[in-house]
Amino acid sequence: MAQLVRFGVSLEKDLLAAFDLRLKGKKYTNRSEAIRDLIREELVRQQWQEGSEIAGTITMIYDHHKRELVNKLMDIQHDFGNIIISTQHIHLDHHNCLEIIAVKGKPSQAQELADTLKAIKWVKHAVLNMSSTGKDI
Amino acid sequence: MAQLVRFGVSLEKDLLAAFDLRLKGKKYTNRSEAIRDLIREELVRQQWQEGSEIAGTITMIYDHHKRELVNKLMDIQHDFGNIIISTQHIHLDHHNCLEIIAVKGKPSQAQELADTLKAIKWVKHAVLNMSSTGKDI
Amino acid sequence: MAQLVRFGVSLEKDLLAAFDLRLKGKKYTNRSEAIRDLIREELVRQQWQEGSEIAGTITMIYDHHKRELVNKLMDIQHDFGNIIISTQHIHLDHHNCLEIIAVKGKPSQAQELADTLKAIKWVKHAVLNMSSTGKDI
Amino acid sequence: MAQLVRFGVSLEKDLLAAFDLRLKGKKYTNRSEAIRDLIREELVRQQWQEGSEIAGTITMIYDHHKRELVNKLMDIQHDFGNIIISTQHIHLDHHNCLEIIAVKGKPSQAQELADTLKAIKWVKHAVLNMSSTGKDI
Repeated sequence: MAQLVRFGVSLEKDLLAAFDLRLKGKKYTNRSEAIRDLIREELVRQQWQEGSEIAGTITMIYDHHKRELVNKLMDIQHDFGNIIISTQHIHLDHHNCLEIIAVKGKPSQAQELADTLKAIKWVKHAVLNMSSTGKDI
Repeated sequence: MAQLVRFGVSLEKDLLAAFDLRLKGKKYTNRSEAIRDLIREELVRQQWQEGSEIAGTITMIYDHHKRELVNKLMDIQHDFGNIIISTQHIHLDHHNCLEIIAVKGKPSQAQELADTLKAIKWVKHAVLNMSSTGKDI
Repeated sequence: MAQLVRFGVSLEKDLLAAFDLRLKGKKYTNRSEAIRDLIREELVRQQWQEGSEIAGTITMIYDHHKRELVNKLMDIQHDFGNIIISTQHIHLDHHNCLEIIAVKGKPSQAQELADTLKAIKWVKHAVLNMSSTGKDI
Repeated sequence: MAQLVRFGVSLEKDLLAAFDLRLKGKKYTNRSEAIRDLIREELVRQQWQEGSEIAGTITMIYDHHKRELVNKLMDIQHDFGNIIISTQHIHLDHHNCLEIIAVKGKPSQAQELADTLKAIKWVKHAVLNMSSTGKDI
């Protein structure tokens, strides 16, 4: 289990009061946990900027009524097989599918896959979501 | 099948040349598809701003080595059962799990679920990703 | 002068080491200052979300070669006189002007001014930048 | 004056109707202008990603009651004199100053200046805003 350390932060009394109020609204019960989350978010930004190994998700919406589309999406996902972990597929309504692809690799590879999917006709929306492998955070 | 219409856009010659070059880098083979995607992204921003029904994903990383954590996450997901469609779970390594929750509902509900999960100890990172039900885009 | 308080944060040793490394890259010489900045950024997000009084800047680029444009921009700025503090104007080259408008007021008013300016022909780019009056942060 | 060209976009009738409605809310009177703005925003994102010459603004809030702070800010601005065009200073209240620095140069230089300013004690908030020199958009 990870070794815990403790350090002190000094700040203006009013700033701390405002932060504590914000944390209540954000469901935190513990100030340290909120600080840890701010720190981890900063580190995730760094991992994406610096091209470290990251994890993320690509969320896309498409109309599945074109059989060729489904085949094309399948082909592309196989081309990027080295960074795709798994895919979750949801039938939103008669027309629209929500597909969520979990990826692990370099930010540039994840971005290229997201770009390639978004550029396809009948893919209505595709967005890349930045997360982390959790290793160094 | 959706009825197609056509409209004209006038713009500076150099601006169009720069856009065409960008599209090549972004894998587009068709200018109309690129314009449609820019339009749809604008509409998705609107849906989230105005509180329409949206779809989205919450991506989170956590260390599963606390049995109470897994139960807590399960309880919360049941509390928000009305907006959760399904969940995808990936074992990133011995410690870290990547869990992706597909949601459909109001932006404020999706945000509240993401906040609630992020505030939990042992959840290292949680991020809400904005997409759409695809209905009006 | 503001009263300082001190509180302790406990976190994983490796997480703190990664954060300290990031801070070096971000020019920080002091960990408390970095934490304070993360906290203040969270509070600025809150002020914009909740519609508190904010300060911000609108940065726009336009081609000044249309006399009617300059008059139109002037008229609009007078219509929004209650939220505009001052304007800085820079001649980027023979064609392009960079104009930066400092605003103080409600987020929705600042957004409306930015939208109004962006929608004008010959205004090439306009973006709203979120900052704070500094009062509660 | 820039040469205008015209091209056609085909899209779903409902999508166009939704876009037209959005444009009304966003103060546009002209569909071409809205498309041009979406295109230019895409190109500005590209310029920042690819490290082209950009223009931008750094907006910061600080408490000027430390004389050494004002000197320090001045020194740093001189160190980055090659990318700073001009500075606008606003007295928000008895304590807080809003200072807006217009910059032109590489994105990495603008980011470094913003980081350096943000890391200083008594600088409460500093944010870098991405715009363009207007040259290729």
